[in-house]
Amino acid sequence: MSNQVLPGELTEGILSFLPLFYVGWSDSVLSPSEMKIIHEKLNCLECLTAEEKAYLIKWTDPTSPPDESTFKEWVIALKSYGKDLAVDGKTSLVDLGLEIAKGSQSGKDLEETKSALIELGKALGVDGQISSNILLSKIDSANEIKPDGATFDVKALQDFMDGEYADTKNRMRILLSDHAFAYVTEPDKDIFRLRILDQTKELAKQGVSAYSFPKKYGGGERSGDHIAVFEMLGYSDLSLAIKFGVQFGLFGGALYSLGTEKHHKKYLEAMHRADLLGCFAMTETGHGSNVNGLTTTATYDSDTKELVIHSPNVEAGKEYIGNAMHSTMAAVFAQLIVDGESHGVHAVLVPIRDDNNELMPGVTVKDSGYKMGLNGVDNGRIWFDNVRVPKDNLLNRFGDIDDNGHYDSPLKNPSKRFFTMLGALVVGRICVGLAGISASKSALTIATKYALKRRQFNAKDNLPETLIMDYPTHQHRLIPLVAKTYAYYFALRRLADKYTNNTDGDMRHIETLAAGLKSKATWHATRTIQECREACGGKGYLKENRFADLKADTDIFTTFEGDNTVLMQLVAKGVLTEFRKSFGENNFFAVMKYLQERLSKKLIEINPSYANNTSVSHLLDPRFHAHAFRYREEKLTLSVSTRMRKYLGQRIDPNDAYMRCQLHMLELGAAYSERLALTSFQSAIETVEDKNVKSALEKVCQLYALTIIQQEKGFFLENEYLGVSKTKAIRRMIAKLNQELRPMAGTLVDSFGIPEELLGANIILYN
Amino acid sequence: MSNQVLPGELTEGILSFLPLFYVGWSDSVLSPSEMKIIHEKLNCLECLTAEEKAYLIKWTDPTSPPDESTFKEWVIALKSYGKDLAVDGKTSLVDLGLEIAKGSQSGKDLEETKSALIELGKALGVDGQISSNILLSKIDSANEIKPDGATFDVKALQDFMDGEYADTKNRMRILLSDHAFAYVTEPDKDIFRLRILDQTKELAKQGVSAYSFPKKYGGGERSGDHIAVFEMLGYSDLSLAIKFGVQFGLFGGALYSLGTEKHHKKYLEAMHRADLLGCFAMTETGHGSNVNGLTTTATYDSDTKELVIHSPNVEAGKEYIGNAMHSTMAAVFAQLIVDGESHGVHAVLVPIRDDNNELMPGVTVKDSGYKMGLNGVDNGRIWFDNVRVPKDNLLNRFGDIDDNGHYDSPLKNPSKRFFTMLGALVVGRICVGLAGISASKSALTIATKYALKRRQFNAKDNLPETLIMDYPTHQHRLIPLVAKTYAYYFALRRLADKYTNNTDGDMRHIETLAAGLKSKATWHATRTIQECREACGGKGYLKENRFADLKADTDIFTTFEGDNTVLMQLVAKGVLTEFRKSFGENNFFAVMKYLQERLSKKLIEINPSYANNTSVSHLLDPRFHAHAFRYREEKLTLSVSTRMRKYLGQRIDPNDAYMRCQLHMLELGAAYSERLALTSFQSAIETVEDKNVKSALEKVCQLYALTIIQQEKGFFLENEYLGVSKTKAIRRMIAKLNQELRPMAGTLVDSFGIPEELLGANIILYN
Repeated sequence: MSNQVLPGELTEGILSFLPLFYVGWSDSVLSPSEMKIIHEKLNCLECLTAEEKAYLIKWTDPTSPPDESTFKEWVIALKSYGKDLAVDGKTSLVDLGLEIAKGSQSGKDLEETKSALIELGKALGVDGQISSNILLSKIDSANEIKPDGATFDVKALQDFMDGEYADTKNRMRILLSDHAFAYVTEPDKDIFRLRILDQTKELAKQGVSAYSFPKKYGGGERSGDHIAVFEMLGYSDLSLAIKFGVQFGLFGGALYSLGTEKHHKKYLEAMHRADLLGCFAMTETGHGSNVNGLTTTATYDSDTKELVIHSPNVEAGKEYIGNAMHSTMAAVFAQLIVDGESHGVHAVLVPIRDDNNELMPGVTVKDSGYKMGLNGVDNGRIWFDNVRVPKDNLLNRFGDIDDNGHYDSPLKNPSKRFFTMLGALVVGRICVGLAGISASKSALTIATKYALKRRQFNAKDNLPETLIMDYPTHQHRLIPLVAKTYAYYFALRRLADKYTNNTDGDMRHIETLAAGLKSKATWHATRTIQECREACGGKGYLKENRFADLKADTDIFTTFEGDNTVLMQLVAKGVLTEFRKSFGENNFFAVMKYLQERLSKKLIEINPSYANNTSVSHLLDPRFHAHAFRYREEKLTLSVSTRMRKYLGQRIDPNDAYMRCQLHMLELGAAYSERLALTSFQSAIETVEDKNVKSALEKVCQLYALTIIQQEKGFFLENEYLGVSKTKAIRRMIAKLNQELRPMAGTLVDSFGIPEELLGANIILYN
Repeated sequence: MSNQVLPGELTEGILSFLPLFYVGWSDSVLSPSEMKIIHEKLNCLECLTAEEKAYLIKWTDPTSPPDESTFKEWVIALKSYGKDLAVDGKTSLVDLGLEIAKGSQSGKDLEETKSALIELGKALGVDGQISSNILLSKIDSANEIKPDGATFDVKALQDFMDGEYADTKNRMRILLSDHAFAYVTEPDKDIFRLRILDQTKELAKQGVSAYSFPKKYGGGERSGDHIAVFEMLGYSDLSLAIKFGVQFGLFGGALYSLGTEKHHKKYLEAMHRADLLGCFAMTETGHGSNVNGLTTTATYDSDTKELVIHSPNVEAGKEYIGNAMHSTMAAVFAQLIVDGESHGVHAVLVPIRDDNNELMPGVTVKDSGYKMGLNGVDNGRIWFDNVRVPKDNLLNRFGDIDDNGHYDSPLKNPSKRFFTMLGALVVGRICVGLAGISASKSALTIATKYALKRRQFNAKDNLPETLIMDYPTHQHRLIPLVAKTYAYYFALRRLADKYTNNTDGDMRHIETLAAGLKSKATWHATRTIQECREACGGKGYLKENRFADLKADTDIFTTFEGDNTVLMQLVAKGVLTEFRKSFGENNFFAVMKYLQERLSKKLIEINPSYANNTSVSHLLDPRFHAHAFRYREEKLTLSVSTRMRKYLGQRIDPNDAYMRCQLHMLELGAAYSERLALTSFQSAIETVEDKNVKSALEKVCQLYALTIIQQEKGFFLENEYLGVSKTKAIRRMIAKLNQELRPMAGTLVDSFGIPEELLGANIILYN
């Protein structure tokens, strides 16, 4: 061993102390009294030369910690030993140092080194099993080792996640870090709203509001970039994100997708420049989820060629309408009545304020007042009392009234027409899902960074207190949420690509995907931000640390753009429809039988060795994960289908039959969306080139998969897909993965690439 | 059948239509067009006499619905038939009406009646299976049937829950309904805080702040009433509850429990009259959960017989201190140093402001700023720079400095001394737990009442939209949370009684109970309020509907008075200590073996017939529930003990061993607390005299028990305590219980007895 080539001034004497120093520096702060102990101890060691002592003492100055290249040097030197050493997960840092010292020392010197190592370990607070594991995991698997223990390069992972939108995202990072977008705690809603309005106009000035519109109207024709912009706004003040979404996504989207050339020409440019402010007046007090049942009417008056917009009662008022207090125009969704006949819901442009910002005659607007969050968004209620607009104001892409007063539509079925109109707005769900994931990333970054500096309770009186990230409970709270966040991110990005590249116009499948992922991602955001708040204790409760707004602002994400519980049923319906279509309706029973057999056969094939295979390689195998997720999805599809058929066969009213399956539908929706997240994550990993990034993501994906399987272990045990020994092994494997990912926790959240200004949390800057 | 005695004018002709009318009225509103259909249909029926028609038509006037006694009359009449009818859960309302009509009609009349019933059912929107079940469950089990379908009297249940504190609680209901306590949305924290300060003083004026103090200082000597007052404050603005808790519970509690006669005499009366405002300065920035590690010092200066209070650094500053901006005095927790020796943490009274409200020399106070919630509470940070107070200011019940400058304490062990001091404050945890439950009750009341009036989606075009409470998904979201709320309420009430009646002074067991129930109850509150917010959709997001504040204000409950994750480990430690004590430490392995055998034997005895017993009576049997909960608790106790022993046997460092068991400890803490809630609930039910109340509570308790078993089915399946067929049967049973409790949902939340003024939610008043 003594003929190892050592870099620079690193002797074996120094090297034997470096494991302690390395881990001590990567995790600890040194108090003056601890420093004193270290100096004294080092100085009286006979086994070290004066140069060696000086080298080590240099690295005990708390004001000048070792820099990255020094760390790298240490690790390379330690690695050159590590690979030959008889060390394993149970080796302590002291043992590791001793193993190294054995290369050049023996007898009394070795004894002295040992006792010095023990004492220094105590003083540095790094003598435990956990600390040693941190170092070993670095030495084991590192090519390029970062001081925080990650095995991969932050920038490489961030670039991979940003993908083809890296330029747009980086531009947004710089833009949003500008002082103009700094967080301000503004309790007064009216002042807050004006601030957000200014910021919205600022974004329009920067041109980032125009990506999804045609070039001939000053747009970018890059709808993928629009989604990327919204994703980045998810890191900023969420009032801004939602105001932006209402103005350019909903109002702009209605103009563009439901309107025709005449509307585009007249309004698109003014809209995306925020010169024309508009709102999206769909939801009514009486009808939210059941938007097909809206009762506002748009009645055609053939004498004047006008549409008369009317709210028949209080309940018909438009409610929660974002931008209502600032807008001059509303895209109003109403039952279109021509010649006494109703043609279902259509959108009509209705001016609601004049040039002096005074309400138009017949229009009543009422402030929605303070909300749980998003108080920078001006929500209001709007009623119309026989307000007249020219018939040209009908957004007529999917239905029009000709000059003779006849209604016509390319889509004859009113229900199909309505859902086609809604489908044009599916991008909103993708955006909200991504914004939820961005908010989750912010919360996890803050909580993780805090856990990497916050200490509480010491194992022994003379040791520094333990980093809270080193508690298994804390790892268990945060790390699986990081894994889920990655999974939903990749799934939504994949969906966004599918949407952006969708040319054939069939939106049904994309709608199912969007409904499922929007729901899961926003529920995930609610849960994640809550857990992160709690994981930061009292600090998490202060407004200055961001959780208050993150939680309150995103809370409504589970409701707007479609109530999640309703959407999950939509997902299940979509899955069942696709399932039926794939076999043809006529053959239902044959298909059922076939599938039933297939699933049972799967079980026979895999049992008992599969159901009880607890080998590490199997438990971590992505094919096992995909198989389990698919099994759950298929089994639930079969189960709901069979159940529905049975009830209908008993002549139970279809609505009652549906009611009886409702809870199963929710489960199916969840199983489908979770499988989607897994397969998207796995597919994304296949395209990673950097092998360190790839191996880190594989571990994260394994944790995601096993966490879901563990959550659903009741299902898997009930169906005998998993045996008892396997579910127990999975539980242990999750704990192990959490521990293995622990040293990368900081890097995994850094890779989200959220600028510090946007995190805006005091706790990660100072106490 | 025709010789049945019918009350009043009720003929069998009428009676055959009453099932429809009854259910229609209890759930529906009638639109003018529906009314028209009913009138037309009834008028042309040949099978009814003019009198019968007139009677039925009278009850189609939406402005004068049938009153309670009419409902009762109908039910009694229907019951007299119901018991002889061949009806079951699958009988529709039409079938039920026909069964009755058979008693007096036949042939053509019967055919006419049938078609009329079908059409009327459609018009009333009550022709489905679900509606029929509602009626049947009423008829099945009712003596006194209320119009909302409950089988018991609201007042009777409320009285039972209020118990011996009914007078105090009713007084608080009236007091808090006063305009002086009305909710105001006040965004400016400084104005809001002054408002809450005024309200706190108002409560002191009313004398409700003095219950826990001795009579000779103007107190009530009824600590149970203090807890009851706090529970009721949980229904009011939670800033008021917390401000009240800080002033009279924490500061007052420290004065009373940690101080002695001299302090009582000097301060108690001024404190409970709110003339002396004080704060409880324990938590420091650097030390929250690990409060034993506080670094503020109180150093005795024997020359001046003063204590010098000092914050050695920024991190030693007191943080999140409620009442910090309004107080003139602080009970400061600091390391007491006498003659160079530290005696651990003690509390010292330190004046922080003078009569002119100016800060005292050496005292720095900084506003904590805006928080997620509780912005009516003035939290601040406090630092001391060598602030001197007379030694008499030491709260000296558990440790004192004599005139010669010697420290002495009745408790020699500093750690035991410290935990005894903390133990004196356990009542705070009970109060916070109860306030969390009160907040859950408010949220559930609002969400349930909304679900009983909100309709969305109709099954068919000609039917009114369905009440959202009639969706199985909605029942599944809300009703089990109502059941859990009842369970935790009874558990906390029982604990409060145990605390109030505790005379032997041994607080250890009570501390374990309080730690467990505080944690479970406050986590439950966080989850419940979140679910209720989401269940009310957009309406739930508006400040005017209360969820925003309920959620934000209670969010910190899971952190303060002990972080829940830390407390759960304390619970587990308590359970393990009690477990070891019950057998004597020496016999550990014998005991383990015995217990292991006992648990296996239990399984042998109960398997397979027990593990797969799916009979209704067994699934609903409280003994099965208690057995399952106990099994889980004991199994986890055994498992953690064995694991700890194993690690220690392998000479693993005790702290590392503990870390490895940490996740299991959390599970054990949860299992223990959930079992506690179950057995408390079951015991409470045994004392109910009113048999309708009793039977309703039994059902609620069954739902609580099965919901937890279902949540933990992975555990029960893994341990083969439950078989697959049983877990599936439990799932079905939960759906059935939800459906059975659906008609009582309104009454179950009304029984919480929360005055409408305190609910303060616009949605349940009007849209």
